[in-house]
Amino acid sequence: MSAPFATLAEFETLLGSMPGPDQAARTDAEARNGQLTKPPGALGRLEDLAIWYAGWRGTGRPRLEAPQVIVFAGNHGVTARGVSAFPAEVTVQMVANFRAGGAAINQLARAFGARMDVHALELDRPTADFTAAPAMTEADCVAALAAGWAAVDPAADLLVVGEMGIGNTTSAAAIAMALYGGEAADWTGRGTGVDDRGLAVKTQVVAEGVARHAPAAPLQTLARLGGREVAAMAGAMARARAERIPVILDGFIACAAAAVLAETAPGALDHAVAGHQSAEGAHARLLARLGKEPLLNLGLRLGEASGAALAIGVLKGAIACHSGMATFAEAGVSDG
Amino acid sequence: MSAPFATLAEFETLLGSMPGPDQAARTDAEARNGQLTKPPGALGRLEDLAIWYAGWRGTGRPRLEAPQVIVFAGNHGVTARGVSAFPAEVTVQMVANFRAGGAAINQLARAFGARMDVHALELDRPTADFTAAPAMTEADCVAALAAGWAAVDPAADLLVVGEMGIGNTTSAAAIAMALYGGEAADWTGRGTGVDDRGLAVKTQVVAEGVARHAPAAPLQTLARLGGREVAAMAGAMARARAERIPVILDGFIACAAAAVLAETAPGALDHAVAGHQSAEGAHARLLARLGKEPLLNLGLRLGEASGAALAIGVLKGAIACHSGMATFAEAGVSDG
Repeated sequence: MSAPFATLAEFETLLGSMPGPDQAARTDAEARNGQLTKPPGALGRLEDLAIWYAGWRGTGRPRLEAPQVIVFAGNHGVTARGVSAFPAEVTVQMVANFRAGGAAINQLARAFGARMDVHALELDRPTADFTAAPAMTEADCVAALAAGWAAVDPAADLLVVGEMGIGNTTSAAAIAMALYGGEAADWTGRGTGVDDRGLAVKTQVVAEGVARHAPAAPLQTLARLGGREVAAMAGAMARARAERIPVILDGFIACAAAAVLAETAPGALDHAVAGHQSAEGAHARLLARLGKEPLLNLGLRLGEASGAALAIGVLKGAIACHSGMATFAEAGVSDG
Repeated sequence: MSAPFATLAEFETLLGSMPGPDQAARTDAEARNGQLTKPPGALGRLEDLAIWYAGWRGTGRPRLEAPQVIVFAGNHGVTARGVSAFPAEVTVQMVANFRAGGAAINQLARAFGARMDVHALELDRPTADFTAAPAMTEADCVAALAAGWAAVDPAADLLVVGEMGIGNTTSAAAIAMALYGGEAADWTGRGTGVDDRGLAVKTQVVAEGVARHAPAAPLQTLARLGGREVAAMAGAMARARAERIPVILDGFIACAAAAVLAETAPGALDHAVAGHQSAEGAHARLLARLGKEPLLNLGLRLGEASGAALAIGVLKGAIACHSGMATFAEAGVSDG
């Protein structure tokens, strides 16, 4: 479907009028959870996950059968400043790798039964170096949000979004600093593996970008400091909310996109859980700002939706237990 | 196969002569890992897991296709002391639930493509109350170790073992205290959900049992303070080592069984990783003693192999990435 917004202001209005979970389904799920053949609370966070998922899917006994993984790719003018350990050409090379099925996310999507889509966003037209100009015009940012919106399959029952874009931890750090304050060094890390000198450059670049473009409204920040893939992730997460499709958040860059939504409309991420805490230093700080406790913490720092895709397994397990287990009455087990 | 031991002394000798991993396969896996289309180290612990698994399976590019989950059940005389929130009858009721497919572990085994077996160990003959007598004779303990040994499918390529046995967190706490020292309260927790009074009784019972039966060699400790399902888990883990089948450890009780092996023969758990850290308070302490970092920490405290089964998903993801990803050369991606 074409996106129901043509400006950032219309997107902001849309975010303010999104549906919530189905409270009756949540209540049904809570009641069912209390009757399953286990001590109360013994499945820990799996119980909370299943109830959360049930609410968004509108049934007390949900199934998870059609997860969708989307990887968005974009190029960043700020790479000219030397902020990444890899050359910018790697973005388009990795898109080819995604399409050929050779990347980590291809294996993880297959392992957890997810459909995977790749959207390369005008790779031959990098964003502007945000230390010199806004990264995107408002029209470019709206187009990227709309690309993300359109990429979501409304028949999916779970959405995981990720990214590929050499230079985009720099963009994400600048967005986070613009939204939440602090020092540039609080938000920068080694990304794909910059050395000490690269990290110092990156931190300087983030400070310059934020000094130039902040303060601004969150969606203006996204346009001025973000990238097309970052905006597309935000658009996809918003579309998921409109369709009541639960979302698993990936790493630092995906969470920077999510933070723009959360800062624009309170509760805009109620349909999302944090898939993992990455090894990118500032991800933990960003998750804390989002109020999300990660499901996994395994030192991943790859992007591509990889950590969130791995967490699909946890959610599958949670839903399988919730919807498949016998109740005490069904099994003839004494309930303590 | 019938077990190649008839006494605890023979089992101890066997543990001292177990095979190690295939170093050439490990080296192959490390080399492959360095060529995959990702920044070095970007898959974090998934990389270590894949290399560890490759070494034990004897190939640098392994597959995970035949995981086996085994749940052992046993009854405990110490339940007469009032150490559990559930009546002892629940053990046999839950065995019926496992066989009917209604328990959490049934759903998790199915979700991750694992074969599941249930072995009920003389439920009509509970172990003795260890505050009054040894829980098992040496012959009973050997029989339980042998039942565990025989339960493992040598064609499996991953083993997860778990337990059901009302009262068995009390047994596990006593084993842990006997092996590692400390106070009884360091090792006791709420299990399936005892109240403060029940916890105080449980702590007292553990202290009494350890005072009566410790110090002793670790396998003697297993006999005197353990349960049939605890010994069977130890036997199964040992068989897995003999067959070079990697193991994912479950929660507090499974780790108490594992600890008996580790204290009997250094390195006896090199073929095992910790699947999760449970909400049972002393599990973190026990994992630290075993030197194992858990893959998951989601507040589970159910037993039944549930946390370890959930971690099968993480291992599947790790192996899928390792063995399925393209190399930089194959994908034509610049490697930084």
